[in-house]
Amino acid sequence: MRVFGIDPGSDRTGYGCIDSDGRVHQLVRCGAVRAGAADSFPDQLKIIYRELTVLLAEHRPDCVAIENIFHAVNARSALKLGHARGVAMLAAIEAGVTVVEYTPAEIKRAVVGYGRAEKPQVAQMVKVLLGLDAIPKPNDATDALAVAICHLHSGNLMQKAGARVASPKSQAPSPKSWRNYRP
Amino acid sequence: MRVFGIDPGSDRTGYGCIDSDGRVHQLVRCGAVRAGAADSFPDQLKIIYRELTVLLAEHRPDCVAIENIFHAVNARSALKLGHARGVAMLAAIEAGVTVVEYTPAEIKRAVVGYGRAEKPQVAQMVKVLLGLDAIPKPNDATDALAVAICHLHSGNLMQKAGARVASPKSQAPSPKSWRNYRP
Repeated sequence: MRVFGIDPGSDRTGYGCIDSDGRVHQLVRCGAVRAGAADSFPDQLKIIYRELTVLLAEHRPDCVAIENIFHAVNARSALKLGHARGVAMLAAIEAGVTVVEYTPAEIKRAVVGYGRAEKPQVAQMVKVLLGLDAIPKPNDATDALAVAICHLHSGNLMQKAGARVASPKSQAPSPKSWRNYRP
Repeated sequence: MRVFGIDPGSDRTGYGCIDSDGRVHQLVRCGAVRAGAADSFPDQLKIIYRELTVLLAEHRPDCVAIENIFHAVNARSALKLGHARGVAMLAAIEAGVTVVEYTPAEIKRAVVGYGRAEKPQVAQMVKVLLGLDAIPKPNDATDALAVAICHLHSGNLMQKAGARVASPKSQAPSPKSWRNYRP
C-alpha cells in the first residue's frame, strides 16, 4: 500500500509518500511545495495544485492522507489555510485518489501513542518508524509523513495484518499494537 | 468588458456574469453551483471546481471578481469557506483569467454607496443597475452579481469613462460618480 501524506499551507505544503506491506514502512519521497514566493495568492494556489498534481501522477498512491484542522489561531489564518487545503484535496480527487482526514490528536496518537505529544516527539518517531538516519527536512515534510503513517496504522492495513483495528474515524491504534509489526 | 463574479460557499457557490460598455451593464447569466448534496467534502470541491471551469470556458470573462472575507463567524466556518474559495480561485487562474478581490464593505459602497448597507439594499440595487424585473435568485447569485458590479465601478473602466477613479484596492467610487453612466 502506498500512502501520500499532505500537510497543507499557503507558503509551504509538505508532502511525504510511504510504501508499506503492513509491517515495514519505506520512505518513497518527501519534501515541500514552496509557493510563498509567488506573485499573488491565486498564483500560490496554482503552484500548490500543479506541483501536487505532478507528484500524484508520478507516485500514484492508493490514498491521500491529510490533516484535519478544526482549531486555527484565528478565522483569518483558518481562511488562508483553507484555500491551500482545498486545492490540495482537489489535486487528490482530480487524480482519482481517495482522501482521508485525521485530526492532529489522531495523528499524534498513531505515531507517538499520546494525543498531546509535542512536535519533536512526532518527528523523532517518524524517523524511527521509517528507519531514517535523520529527521526529514523541512518540518512540513515530516508532518506530512506523520499523517501518512497515521493512515497506515489505522483501518484496513492493520486489519489485514491481524492487529487491533481502529477505523480512520475513531481512535488510532496505540503504538503497542503496531510496534509488533516492525521487523 | 465582461466580469464574472463569484460568491463562494461549500454548499452553494453563486456566480454572475455581466457585460458592460462602461455605461450600461447587461446581465449575461447568473445562478449557483449546488454542491451540498455531494457524498463527501472533497466531492463538493470537485463539483465547484468543475462547474466553474465549464462556466468560465463558456463565457470567457476578462476578469473574475470575488469577495474577500476577513471576518468569519469562527475559525471552523472560515476554514470550510476557504476550501470553496480556494478551488473557485483556482478555476479562474487555470482558465487564465485575472482574479480581483473586494471586501464586503467595498462591494456595498460600490453598489449601494454605503459600506454598511443591508443585504436587501444590495439586492435591490443589483436589480436596478442591471435593469431586471426582479431580484435574481438564489441570494448567492445576487451576491456574485454585486461583486461583479463592484469591479465594474472600480478602476480602469471608470478611468476610461472619465469618472472619478478608485483602484480596486482602495475605496470604490460613490454611487454619485457612476450613476451618471446609466442611460
